[in-house]
Amino acid sequence: MLTVDISVSLDGFVAGPDPSLEDPLGRGGEQLHEWAVATEAFRSRHGMADGAASVDSDLVEETTRRTGATVMGRRMFSGGAGGWDDDPRADGWWGEDPPFHHPVFVLTHHAREPLEMEGGTTFTFVTDGIEAALEQALAAAGDKDVLVAGGGSAVQQYLRAGLLDELQLHVVPVLLGDGTRLFERHVADAPAELQCTRSVASPTGVAHLRYRVSK
Amino acid sequence: MLTVDISVSLDGFVAGPDPSLEDPLGRGGEQLHEWAVATEAFRSRHGMADGAASVDSDLVEETTRRTGATVMGRRMFSGGAGGWDDDPRADGWWGEDPPFHHPVFVLTHHAREPLEMEGGTTFTFVTDGIEAALEQALAAAGDKDVLVAGGGSAVQQYLRAGLLDELQLHVVPVLLGDGTRLFERHVADAPAELQCTRSVASPTGVAHLRYRVSK
Repeated sequence: MLTVDISVSLDGFVAGPDPSLEDPLGRGGEQLHEWAVATEAFRSRHGMADGAASVDSDLVEETTRRTGATVMGRRMFSGGAGGWDDDPRADGWWGEDPPFHHPVFVLTHHAREPLEMEGGTTFTFVTDGIEAALEQALAAAGDKDVLVAGGGSAVQQYLRAGLLDELQLHVVPVLLGDGTRLFERHVADAPAELQCTRSVASPTGVAHLRYRVSK
Repeated sequence: MLTVDISVSLDGFVAGPDPSLEDPLGRGGEQLHEWAVATEAFRSRHGMADGAASVDSDLVEETTRRTGATVMGRRMFSGGAGGWDDDPRADGWWGEDPPFHHPVFVLTHHAREPLEMEGGTTFTFVTDGIEAALEQALAAAGDKDVLVAGGGSAVQQYLRAGLLDELQLHVVPVLLGDGTRLFERHVADAPAELQCTRSVASPTGVAHLRYRVSK
């Protein structure tokens, strides 16, 4: 099964404006991930003891448990902004021990050798399109799910291609005002019917919405 | 208390593209309101017996009970599109017995006499700004709430002015792809903190989100 799991501002942005290597999520974009970073599920996996047990944490844990491989766009791999294919600093953006701990497939136009990181994360660069990346990811995931982690462009491509089974949105109660939208105009030609099958409001103010996508 | 209650597509639109007098909600826009129109709470108030009792219906009933007056933008009054101030057909768009049954204040630049409709709805046209409209609406509402019904522009103006206490979004699981956004870019200067205080996924696939706005 192919699922999307992504944090989005109430006004629909998955990253703020003016992303750069120094501020890869754009202005204000870090707020989208604070809820997840604060959870026990996230922190305990990264050797930190001060995480909070919460609905948020349960949901992070659930996604972690279900996911066997991740697909992401090239900008997400290189830290949020564009044009860094040849900038070696981009390789370091996720750190030496990235938070995935499973195979990650990066959609890109530039062929390169896989990157093996600490903690079980490998980055494989797929140059022959979203379906090829999905095929490789499904094989790597075994009986677990494949997760499209972002960014907006990768999500839109899978949705439009009718390949998504599920969409999980974590709607963070902030207004970024500008940046990268999850849904740009004209994504409506997606051959999909959506149904909200779960909705959880957490004490942190985040609304966790799960959608089933029928093709 | 000033609240917003509005249906929005998953991709953030409160109306579809190309609205006209014949298709005032724009292409696909009617889908945003099907969930509400199907409820028992809505239909019984309009003399129809075939409504469905449901979570959706309970929420429509709750909003109806709480609301003492409504504020809306001029385009919403005239049926979704612009430029109709002088088109008498626009007056008939809500029908002879509009679904409000309480005072409605219309934000406009064109002064005109109030319109008294059947069933307790009066349309009062306010030309001196959103704060004046809110003042009149609060006085008319007594101990009930004032509701901003839309459209997007009216909601954004009240949010930006720091006048909103609450935001209720009914996120309908459709992608309209184009149209009028609830949140245009650059509404982020709103002096507001938002918190999701309730989240309900209904069997119709709609996610009902309530936000408290702290100024």
